[in-house]
Amino acid sequence: MSMKLLQEKILKDGKIGEGNILKVDSFVNHQIDVKFMNEVGKEFARLFKDEEITKILTIEASGIGIACIVAQYFDVPVVFAKKSKTINIAGDVYVSKVESYTHKNVYDIIVSKEFLHKEDKVLIIDDFLAKGSALNGLIELITAAGATIVGAGIVIEKAYQNGGELIRSRGVRVESLARISSMSDGKIEFID
Amino acid sequence: MSMKLLQEKILKDGKIGEGNILKVDSFVNHQIDVKFMNEVGKEFARLFKDEEITKILTIEASGIGIACIVAQYFDVPVVFAKKSKTINIAGDVYVSKVESYTHKNVYDIIVSKEFLHKEDKVLIIDDFLAKGSALNGLIELITAAGATIVGAGIVIEKAYQNGGELIRSRGVRVESLARISSMSDGKIEFID
Repeated sequence: MSMKLLQEKILKDGKIGEGNILKVDSFVNHQIDVKFMNEVGKEFARLFKDEEITKILTIEASGIGIACIVAQYFDVPVVFAKKSKTINIAGDVYVSKVESYTHKNVYDIIVSKEFLHKEDKVLIIDDFLAKGSALNGLIELITAAGATIVGAGIVIEKAYQNGGELIRSRGVRVESLARISSMSDGKIEFID
Repeated sequence: MSMKLLQEKILKDGKIGEGNILKVDSFVNHQIDVKFMNEVGKEFARLFKDEEITKILTIEASGIGIACIVAQYFDVPVVFAKKSKTINIAGDVYVSKVESYTHKNVYDIIVSKEFLHKEDKVLIIDDFLAKGSALNGLIELITAAGATIVGAGIVIEKAYQNGGELIRSRGVRVESLARISSMSDGKIEFID
């Protein structure tokens, strides 16, 4: 898939909701266009073809479907971080915090120590990158496990927010298939 | 995949946790064995090959990955019902209730009216079936949309609970790839 195809899909099927929020409910995070996600998977496979990857890490819920489709192109398992509701966390998980700007709260994400090891070379896959809180939380889980962060594959980056910039400046490879530069007056523009 | 393979996988990688709960965290609902899920997908494709299916419906979070892999064998999109935290539900969603026996609460699940239509022929996919509350909630969403329920494809059914029996008795086709008849003294037994 060229980045052009994804841009066209966003322009055709995306909607701008209240509060200037991009809604891609019809193919990413409520209904999932599985055929299209296979094109996404092929593109990540191309971008990360020179890397050795042992595991794909994502976060529930909407990252899981994309991660599973993408994982087929690397022949590795998916691990998804869980949003934890439990206050007392047992010692057998890694924990980090994620801030949700949509829901205006902070929550813990956890991953079992059983499924992230220091030998792992981890590719993070997620649908969105905006302020980078979820991505940062996933990076912290990998770091806590002593594993290697190969990079992050993001479907849509809101490049007018600073998450991508901050995380790239720390030396993490972030590949976003569509980078939105602005969304004003109902018009979506991309960085080519 | 024969049902035998899944049984062997459960015996090899499944664990019985506190409260006699079967944990399949290592390949179903925390880490996902994507290659194995492709075998699951092939088996559902075989079981439902004579049905016309336009959409796969599942529920977040752990159903999503499996549903996406399975959907590739039917070439249809996945829709996942969301666990709703919002009290005021807008009029543009179908709502039903699900009881969680693990978390001892009742929550709403919703699906946007945009993604379920009366013309749809829906296959439900989920990882577990026990008391059948989630499956029942999904059936209610499809019914509310006036769509057709083709059936349900379940990876693991706890057949010693009565959810599957109740739902089959209402005329819904339920295909479970592994049916556990008992789990006592740390020993898992299957219905063949």
